Amino acid sequence: MAGLLQHSGIMMKLAALCFVTYLQVAQIAEARIRYHKWDVKYEFRSPDCYKKLVITINGMSPGPTILAQQGDTIIVEVTNSLITENLAIHWHGIRQKGTPWSDGTEAVTQCPLVPGDTFKYQFTVDRAGTYLYHGHYGMQRESGLYGSIRVSPPDGVSEPFAYDYDRSIILTDWYHKSTYEQAVELSSIPFVWVGEPQSLLIQGKGKFDCSSAPAPSGVCNASNPECSPYVLTVVPGKTYRLRVASLTALSALSFQVEGHNMTVVEADGHYVEPFVVNNLFIYSGETYSVLIKADQDPSRNYWMSTNVVSRKPETADGLAILNYYPNHPRRSPPTLPPAGPIWNNTAPRLAQSQAIKARQGFIHTPPPTSDRVIVFLNTQNTINGYVRWSVNNVSFSLPSTPYLVALRQNLHRVFNQNPPPEGYDFANYEIYTKPNNTNGTSSNAIYRLQFNTTVDIILQNANTMIENNSETHPWHLHGHDFWVLGYGKGKFDIHNDTKKYNLVNPIMKNTVPLHPYGWTALRFRADNPGAWLFHCHVEAHFYMGMGVVFAEGIEKVGKLPSAIMGCGETKGFDKP
Amino acid sequence: MAGLLQHSGIMMKLAALCFVTYLQVAQIAEARIRYHKWDVKYEFRSPDCYKKLVITINGMSPGPTILAQQGDTIIVEVTNSLITENLAIHWHGIRQKGTPWSDGTEAVTQCPLVPGDTFKYQFTVDRAGTYLYHGHYGMQRESGLYGSIRVSPPDGVSEPFAYDYDRSIILTDWYHKSTYEQAVELSSIPFVWVGEPQSLLIQGKGKFDCSSAPAPSGVCNASNPECSPYVLTVVPGKTYRLRVASLTALSALSFQVEGHNMTVVEADGHYVEPFVVNNLFIYSGETYSVLIKADQDPSRNYWMSTNVVSRKPETADGLAILNYYPNHPRRSPPTLPPAGPIWNNTAPRLAQSQAIKARQGFIHTPPPTSDRVIVFLNTQNTINGYVRWSVNNVSFSLPSTPYLVALRQNLHRVFNQNPPPEGYDFANYEIYTKPNNTNGTSSNAIYRLQFNTTVDIILQNANTMIENNSETHPWHLHGHDFWVLGYGKGKFDIHNDTKKYNLVNPIMKNTVPLHPYGWTALRFRADNPGAWLFHCHVEAHFYMGMGVVFAEGIEKVGKLPSAIMGCGETKGFDKP
Repeated sequence: MAGLLQHSGIMMKLAALCFVTYLQVAQIAEARIRYHKWDVKYEFRSPDCYKKLVITINGMSPGPTILAQQGDTIIVEVTNSLITENLAIHWHGIRQKGTPWSDGTEAVTQCPLVPGDTFKYQFTVDRAGTYLYHGHYGMQRESGLYGSIRVSPPDGVSEPFAYDYDRSIILTDWYHKSTYEQAVELSSIPFVWVGEPQSLLIQGKGKFDCSSAPAPSGVCNASNPECSPYVLTVVPGKTYRLRVASLTALSALSFQVEGHNMTVVEADGHYVEPFVVNNLFIYSGETYSVLIKADQDPSRNYWMSTNVVSRKPETADGLAILNYYPNHPRRSPPTLPPAGPIWNNTAPRLAQSQAIKARQGFIHTPPPTSDRVIVFLNTQNTINGYVRWSVNNVSFSLPSTPYLVALRQNLHRVFNQNPPPEGYDFANYEIYTKPNNTNGTSSNAIYRLQFNTTVDIILQNANTMIENNSETHPWHLHGHDFWVLGYGKGKFDIHNDTKKYNLVNPIMKNTVPLHPYGWTALRFRADNPGAWLFHCHVEAHFYMGMGVVFAEGIEKVGKLPSAIMGCGETKGFDKP
Repeated sequence: MAGLLQHSGIMMKLAALCFVTYLQVAQIAEARIRYHKWDVKYEFRSPDCYKKLVITINGMSPGPTILAQQGDTIIVEVTNSLITENLAIHWHGIRQKGTPWSDGTEAVTQCPLVPGDTFKYQFTVDRAGTYLYHGHYGMQRESGLYGSIRVSPPDGVSEPFAYDYDRSIILTDWYHKSTYEQAVELSSIPFVWVGEPQSLLIQGKGKFDCSSAPAPSGVCNASNPECSPYVLTVVPGKTYRLRVASLTALSALSFQVEGHNMTVVEADGHYVEPFVVNNLFIYSGETYSVLIKADQDPSRNYWMSTNVVSRKPETADGLAILNYYPNHPRRSPPTLPPAGPIWNNTAPRLAQSQAIKARQGFIHTPPPTSDRVIVFLNTQNTINGYVRWSVNNVSFSLPSTPYLVALRQNLHRVFNQNPPPEGYDFANYEIYTKPNNTNGTSSNAIYRLQFNTTVDIILQNANTMIENNSETHPWHLHGHDFWVLGYGKGKFDIHNDTKKYNLVNPIMKNTVPLHPYGWTALRFRADNPGAWLFHCHVEAHFYMGMGVVFAEGIEKVGKLPSAIMGCGETKGFDKP
């Protein structure tokens, strides 16, 4: 009996050993390491025919596309070859489970990378989908420091839709002033707004009208091949998965392909219950996959275009060419580019937002209730004469020592330890009129969340400091996806609007628009140990203070790499 | 007997106590702390009527003048409010005895100060004289980050010359491109040279001809009061000590005051045996005091002017007004500004260099011999297709971890541990012809000097990579003054030229020109524990590798402040 038990024990151990070995082999076979070595520097480029300094990665802007498979580990060794300027790169949509120090959020998860230094970003991509990376220091993103991340499903798992080819494009807007000049103007008294962009780029290519503004000799050259339009070549009859992302500095966009419908199938890494659109509204920080069938007259090319919505456009539409093979890729379509939707009609934008639901079979059901509700009133304020953006009349400022380090090492002096406001004066604040918001404050206080609790965020829009004006704010959450429970108009009603929440098949996203004079309701689980930024993805708005930080489960964060230190309170030697 | 001895002992102790107390009181009375708090940021300014981003200190460029008395301690708390760009400020001419970490030399004595951080520079000014401060990171100096330091003699000590008033001006040249744009062009293939400056400034004011180049609307405004000329108001009959310094990015200058001679009395903090000049040649990094007597027709104003020498000028002369009180300070002189000397005659420049001797009664006699002679051949080289400046065909590059920290903490991986060359191929290298210098190397190796030894440096000029061209290089030594033993033409002859050394009354300086096709011989004592840069003060030349580092007495350097760390190998926690 004893011998039998012993024998049985040995057999179980052998079986366990075999299983572990199998797992290890499987892991080796499936989870690869995707290693990249990047050199980041300034170079002169003419993406819209106008020559200016652009931040390139290995000579490219947009940077190289990162291709990976679910479960892979991505390692990107970044060398800062900017000359006097620091650097941080954010992996937008990647939740950084277990690697909160790799989120690339300067002052939140790391000190910036000084010139000459190399930093190793290392993280796992744990879900198939369409993601992005971009600079997250100052306003470097809009200097051209961005690119695509495309994660495919694991072997043997197929997408729930069919296509023949997979393509990625990123839409941006483009300014001719340097980010320094813009930042100085935004921080000046009197305030100088960045204004509308000079051009719209599709996958890094646009066209500025050189005759429209004086420029020093040689700066604007309409025949520069760098600003020939982006060309997407298609084979007639084939279906294309087009991954469309926006990393505009400012602009809300509509994207359309002349003569072709688009079927929306993915948003921010989650499958969407398919729906068909003529034009896709897209906000900075969002990614979508749309299916396009090359089923039109194959004897010609077609326009793809982007145009500004939500702000009165002063920028020419961005144009690219859908090239039906074997037509010449540079052959202009015989028609005028499609006119996008009018800029100031919010209804179709709200309708598209509301149309996005999780795909049947891929629904992550949200928790039915939340543990905490935080309301974020989006306002402009003046503080000591400076114009700022705020939530709940508090404009966000960044500390000298990153939150992640300060929290993990209990450096309490580093930031304001008082909790910031959970809401605003719901009863009396009037969202439809120009407020007298001269009483704002600036703070680096943060929201501490109980680990593994469920948090609801209500984004509440309002009138800006300009009469009859409310703007679109795309809010992006780091370290998490959230459920999008609902959108509405006017002031959020905690008693009635919550009843209309979609708790059945809400889409999960990481970026969501807040429409003019509207509200957007989100829910997420505070289940990712770290410090995470939640902010308006409009570059100038975040620069002007439109963001907050959530911290959760800090005690579960592993040993911080010394490479994220070097600023504020973290100078010295950490090594034995 | 024992009682008497004991009594005597007590008396001695009392006497000693009194003496110490006296010393302390005297020290309190004499050696003050001069505290400054600076905020450094970018602002739009129009120093020559053309609006561009300028680095200001507390809103000013040039920054505030530091006034102190010999023996004082200067504390400058600098906050970096540049947005994404680091910072370091060098105290030019201050030897930093005992405070080598306050020299402000990025990558040599400290990590750069990241945005949001505050750094406390603290040092003693141990000798009366005229000094400077300026940015020492990237090419920030030429963005307007500079100012004057004026140190007066101790109480009861008078200067060996008489004057009624004391004034300081700094001469600069000014570019309209940002330092980023310049740096990217300098680091490009094909190489793009920064070219001649757009204007010359006197104490931060110049005049660009707005009609000479197209600019976007509102950028160039000839009637902007910011670019009204600098005015030096004088009372007829009075004598002015004018402290003239140059911090040009590139240009060697001549400075002249219409109708007035100048008596040179001080150079780089050392008294000069007085001599009279019509025009003062001055090189970037040099300071001079000249005496000017307001003894001309008092019914009018006079021009002060600077013009480019040593390079073919393409820049209008810089103009300021010597205003005889009570004439209106803006009244233009009735005459044409004085034409400076012609640009390409080296002889008077060499003659002025040779005329500068230590003043009788203030001679520091140099050691009669040296322990080591290092020859620095100044050349251009190409390295992997990039154009670089070099000494002995080695182009200098900066490490990620500052030398001072690496040396003090024995971080050997941080820089190349092999000694760089002590000379060049004296016999075969032809200094008068265009060389085939495509075989250069780049290195961050340094010269280690035995503590308290005497070192001779021979700067040897040569032809650049352009036919029949040799440039003027002003070399600046950190942490020391050197004796200027001699200047000569052609290739230095170790056997004969050394015999002509001035060992009797050589001036001590910290910056000295190397004239075209000439040599300059220096001697200094390696008596200041630390790591010290020695480099061409032309901003673009140093950026392109024209410098070396000396290290001495590192074991005598005190505990390094953690505030200088944060880059390279020095990230983490140094604190208990």
